[in-house]
Amino acid sequence: MAEPNYRELRHTYGFDEVAIVPGDVTINPDQTDISFSIGKNTFQIPIIASAMDGVTDPAFAIHMSKAGGLAVLNLEGVQTRYDDAAAILKQIADAPQNEVTALMQKAYAEPIREDLITKRIREIKDGGAVCAVSVAPMNTKRFAEIIVDAGADILVVAATVTSAKHLSKSAHGLVFEELVKQLPIPIVVGNCVSYSACISLMRTGVAGVLIGVGPGAACTSREVLGIGVPQITATMDCALARDDYFKESGRYVPIITDGGFRKGGDVCKAIAAGADAVMLGSVFAQAEGSPGYGYHWGMANPHAALPRGTRIKVGITGTLEQILFGPTSLTHGTQNFVGALQNCMGVCGAATIADFHKTEIVVAPSIITEGKFYQMSKPTC
Amino acid sequence: MAEPNYRELRHTYGFDEVAIVPGDVTINPDQTDISFSIGKNTFQIPIIASAMDGVTDPAFAIHMSKAGGLAVLNLEGVQTRYDDAAAILKQIADAPQNEVTALMQKAYAEPIREDLITKRIREIKDGGAVCAVSVAPMNTKRFAEIIVDAGADILVVAATVTSAKHLSKSAHGLVFEELVKQLPIPIVVGNCVSYSACISLMRTGVAGVLIGVGPGAACTSREVLGIGVPQITATMDCALARDDYFKESGRYVPIITDGGFRKGGDVCKAIAAGADAVMLGSVFAQAEGSPGYGYHWGMANPHAALPRGTRIKVGITGTLEQILFGPTSLTHGTQNFVGALQNCMGVCGAATIADFHKTEIVVAPSIITEGKFYQMSKPTC
Amino acid sequence: MAEPNYRELRHTYGFDEVAIVPGDVTINPDQTDISFSIGKNTFQIPIIASAMDGVTDPAFAIHMSKAGGLAVLNLEGVQTRYDDAAAILKQIADAPQNEVTALMQKAYAEPIREDLITKRIREIKDGGAVCAVSVAPMNTKRFAEIIVDAGADILVVAATVTSAKHLSKSAHGLVFEELVKQLPIPIVVGNCVSYSACISLMRTGVAGVLIGVGPGAACTSREVLGIGVPQITATMDCALARDDYFKESGRYVPIITDGGFRKGGDVCKAIAAGADAVMLGSVFAQAEGSPGYGYHWGMANPHAALPRGTRIKVGITGTLEQILFGPTSLTHGTQNFVGALQNCMGVCGAATIADFHKTEIVVAPSIITEGKFYQMSKPTC
Amino acid sequence: MAEPNYRELRHTYGFDEVAIVPGDVTINPDQTDISFSIGKNTFQIPIIASAMDGVTDPAFAIHMSKAGGLAVLNLEGVQTRYDDAAAILKQIADAPQNEVTALMQKAYAEPIREDLITKRIREIKDGGAVCAVSVAPMNTKRFAEIIVDAGADILVVAATVTSAKHLSKSAHGLVFEELVKQLPIPIVVGNCVSYSACISLMRTGVAGVLIGVGPGAACTSREVLGIGVPQITATMDCALARDDYFKESGRYVPIITDGGFRKGGDVCKAIAAGADAVMLGSVFAQAEGSPGYGYHWGMANPHAALPRGTRIKVGITGTLEQILFGPTSLTHGTQNFVGALQNCMGVCGAATIADFHKTEIVVAPSIITEGKFYQMSKPTC
Repeated sequence: MAEPNYRELRHTYGFDEVAIVPGDVTINPDQTDISFSIGKNTFQIPIIASAMDGVTDPAFAIHMSKAGGLAVLNLEGVQTRYDDAAAILKQIADAPQNEVTALMQKAYAEPIREDLITKRIREIKDGGAVCAVSVAPMNTKRFAEIIVDAGADILVVAATVTSAKHLSKSAHGLVFEELVKQLPIPIVVGNCVSYSACISLMRTGVAGVLIGVGPGAACTSREVLGIGVPQITATMDCALARDDYFKESGRYVPIITDGGFRKGGDVCKAIAAGADAVMLGSVFAQAEGSPGYGYHWGMANPHAALPRGTRIKVGITGTLEQILFGPTSLTHGTQNFVGALQNCMGVCGAATIADFHKTEIVVAPSIITEGKFYQMSKPTC
Repeated sequence: MAEPNYRELRHTYGFDEVAIVPGDVTINPDQTDISFSIGKNTFQIPIIASAMDGVTDPAFAIHMSKAGGLAVLNLEGVQTRYDDAAAILKQIADAPQNEVTALMQKAYAEPIREDLITKRIREIKDGGAVCAVSVAPMNTKRFAEIIVDAGADILVVAATVTSAKHLSKSAHGLVFEELVKQLPIPIVVGNCVSYSACISLMRTGVAGVLIGVGPGAACTSREVLGIGVPQITATMDCALARDDYFKESGRYVPIITDGGFRKGGDVCKAIAAGADAVMLGSVFAQAEGSPGYGYHWGMANPHAALPRGTRIKVGITGTLEQILFGPTSLTHGTQNFVGALQNCMGVCGAATIADFHKTEIVVAPSIITEGKFYQMSKPTC
Repeated sequence: MAEPNYRELRHTYGFDEVAIVPGDVTINPDQTDISFSIGKNTFQIPIIASAMDGVTDPAFAIHMSKAGGLAVLNLEGVQTRYDDAAAILKQIADAPQNEVTALMQKAYAEPIREDLITKRIREIKDGGAVCAVSVAPMNTKRFAEIIVDAGADILVVAATVTSAKHLSKSAHGLVFEELVKQLPIPIVVGNCVSYSACISLMRTGVAGVLIGVGPGAACTSREVLGIGVPQITATMDCALARDDYFKESGRYVPIITDGGFRKGGDVCKAIAAGADAVMLGSVFAQAEGSPGYGYHWGMANPHAALPRGTRIKVGITGTLEQILFGPTSLTHGTQNFVGALQNCMGVCGAATIADFHKTEIVVAPSIITEGKFYQMSKPTC
Repeated sequence: MAEPNYRELRHTYGFDEVAIVPGDVTINPDQTDISFSIGKNTFQIPIIASAMDGVTDPAFAIHMSKAGGLAVLNLEGVQTRYDDAAAILKQIADAPQNEVTALMQKAYAEPIREDLITKRIREIKDGGAVCAVSVAPMNTKRFAEIIVDAGADILVVAATVTSAKHLSKSAHGLVFEELVKQLPIPIVVGNCVSYSACISLMRTGVAGVLIGVGPGAACTSREVLGIGVPQITATMDCALARDDYFKESGRYVPIITDGGFRKGGDVCKAIAAGADAVMLGSVFAQAEGSPGYGYHWGMANPHAALPRGTRIKVGITGTLEQILFGPTSLTHGTQNFVGALQNCMGVCGAATIADFHKTEIVVAPSIITEGKFYQMSKPTC
């Protein structure tokens, strides 16, 4: 009998499975340019804070913007459901672990108020910051005009998975081509993880794409739904889509790898893999003054019927400036993300992010190549 | 010297090693059709409860049938050996761990009573349910007529491994071709894991095939006998057999992936890999009213000479409705299996199970791609 | 620049990384023939006990021979250094863990007595057993005549690594071609792990080859010397050498996979991979009446300058008959090795060991495919 | 749509993922020659102690040289910043773990004194030893003349990553071609991990190259910067560069694998993979009389803005002679590194290091092939 035509599966890779190969030429870190743009907005650092309630409130968004980055405010979280959002956030932080999902399911059942959408956007703008806000695709048409009128600079339309074409029973759903034409501000869409989904989204005219579905064990999309592509492969595939789309259209649409980051090395790997910027959640939930009181949770956690993710105690580990720029006395890469990126680009000889995209990455699974005995072996480097 | 002609081994994959890639088009979960058929019996949900004593008794079979699925009653377990099966089940649940295998070896040495076969089938039918029962190949000829006479709708013939052709010293063993012609009800056979074994079974005329041998560490077939193929590869290979058999015969024989499921994501992966339905054991042993009193064990556990598997405390975690349809406050995918499947099909743009079979799966080992630090990183999605 | 001509490495596999695929035809276990021969000696079961002091003494060798297998007595252990070997074995068993290597280094520094070689061989022969004894290559010429004169049936010449050609400063070392011609009894040589080393040994005329160098973490050859090939690959490669040697010479030289076995499934996998028989150490150290008093250690452990391995407490878990043939109430494959092998051959449709060599093996790493949650999932099979 | 042109990643390997295959011919360990040269300096053993403050001070360098190897003194550590370096080292050893990085950041902020550079070099030379010292590239031009004048034999120019061409804002940086011509002593440069970086460095005329960036989890370059290539692949790739460079130039430039070693087997693997010598840190920090008082830390640990690595308690486990040559009662390969290398070369039939470079290595991940149960299985070998 002939060999059956067995189905073959592609291998994919996450942060812990790859490493960056240093270059043949090196440059001084202070000679690297790590700036990044969405539409006409240029940011000094390619780091964005997530639209999560434990991470971004108006105050944090202002702080982040002044530091050279960007933070996205979630317009479907507690900030737009409660006048005193901080009080609710404190309740969530104080709840026992076994009651917190039910509490959140209840707290997020409160309706979204349009006046609070306007108010939160104004707070950010009045602080002198670039204002980016996010809504889910199903709420986009309903809130788009209010958002623009309030003065937001960037609109993020995001869900666990967002596609260029969504089939539903409703007569007239969200069509990105129309939205792009209708709104005067750049639209960033996500999340997606494959070449074809990404290039389809780019062809609708959006200004940026968020990359990442279920990157990691704590994100329970992988457990609950089985979906997800590890971040390095997702980033490489979508970077290829961006480059191919640039060839066909002449328009460069940045991709932002979103989720799963813990260390400076992860940010370096994502950008070397092709990201133009990264979006971090739990890292910023650890900053002094973050709204989550040292706790962090996902926006699918309060889902009424199929909650995913968990509230996690991340603690407060330093100021936003330390996390971004150091200096630090922590030796494991959880602070000074910008310094790490510039140092890594330096040893790879990459003067810009575009250069850094050409750096070689290799498969080097840390779980296999780094046994427990290494603990004892090479503290140098 | 020329390179020797080294023997090469195929790589295989289990649930934890793969992930599903979201689609370029998405659809609303409520627009998906997840129905499934065995012969002329159509079920609203493609989920079957195992023929195991801690999972299915007549009451549970009725409950499951009404919920839109199917449960299989094991005709070689305690239900057909004891009038008061519940009393024996309680003894097993109450036994200390180090005595339970010996106790079960003794309990299952009691003879199977034909009157109880009839009684149990009648109980299920009288409850208005579709009645599926299982026997081992060696007992099939002996009990087939009684089973049919009692009114069973589906006969499952299952053992650790079942083949289309079995060689033994007995003059006239079980021949599936004959059995299929002889019985007026559909016959489901299992278990098998390879393309060739599966297509051979389908050519005998059976109405369905169970897929899965030794999926997991707790199933000690892998340790005791060394046999087993991880479930994703087994499912993909047997789905290919099903499709090739359909091309050659015009007859569509569904495959049911059996064993190793813990989470909604596992069910999504098995069906995306090609299964038409899934068979779950321990998941249902956790339902309120399940016969095992919160315990679960395999039917090879009481084997007199070569016992395999262990009794496991699974606990009672919710109602059958919660497990199948939610809503739930558990965030790790152990409840709302149907919601998970429909959501996953939605983000993959699959309107039917046949569509979902075309979804891309990638290799993404969770043990490697999801390190412990992810614990802290991305609770969103 | 052209891509450099990077060095490529072959992948190799151990027991835990593979699984056996059931067959399309099955046969009853009681119809399988698992006999095995070395020279003119035929054994009912293909299982040999190691030449290790915690495993084989004359009494155990007699017991094992009567059970249908074979045990090899180490002529360089305590049995030939002490009249009262049991007293020394008790001392080793009773020593604290941190003193035992030094104690063994001292105990094994006692000279080997030729009268005790003769005495131990006679004890085995007087018990009516087939007598196999082992010596290291460096001592073979010195003891060969005494061994043959004492009546041994099989001579095993073994070291961590043994090759067909050894270069040393001594004027005239051991030459297997000469030894084979000189001795009237079959010679089994080991250990080796590669195709070329194995076929070279077979070409010297030996009657069997032991396969296995450093199979596992507890064997510290891998840590101390870096050498070793996992047992499944070593067995497959040497089985190919055996088959190719058979084609070129018409002489069938059995290979015996030696070391790393813990469960019935491991034995099944080694034989499916091509072994004619297996050699087990720690499994038999657990038998009632074994000489090690429930402890087990390697023959390289007492090495004066470069000790490897450790003394391990294995405990006494059952009789030799239970370990070999069951019945058992243990469900994890550590008893009834013969039953496991026959059951596995049954589900693979293999009537003989030669048939079983054709069975498909797949790569299915248990560490990846069997997560901790499987613990809860499929106790059946 | 045509398949996108997905980016492919090379697989790489570390110590724990490979094993050495024994040879078809074996030789006596005492017939192996393991000598190694840098420029005109020949060493009896291919083992070098790292330029780390917990490892090498002048006394240790003398001791190591007399034992037949080499130790490198770090000229940017405490030895050249303090008259009484031992007092500072004691402070570091005594500091609590959570204060030690800050303490070191302060201690290493003290300026380097040129008089101490001269003094330390003279101490080593006066002890009759070969004197090797290391500086970072940025300090090389400043100190080179002093180093040569003081009588050093070998200059090591090393940083986390060093390239043949470094771009900076300074008018005139370090150019290795010029340095090589200017200095009368051999220059060893590092670290690098890729074929192209290594061959570029060799083409500058240097006398040796250090291989290794971020080998292991304790080296936090992998976590902080994401960079690193596992040591076996780095060594194989750079050995190919060495061999290709030898073909093009006729000059043989030895490569020294630096970092990640814990056991004798690791040294054997690195040399079999192509290294001419190895550089060990923590192994020697465990020797009686080492300067770190049983503690060990990396030279990037005190980095002011981006500290990497941690201070590790390694303990004092034996004399330098035991670590290098045994005898030992430790069975896990942490002593008698030279005996291990010679034994391994013996079973591989390699008379010289050049021969040993031809030995086959296979991929055999210990984390997968050696499960926890092996603990119990094969203490022999």
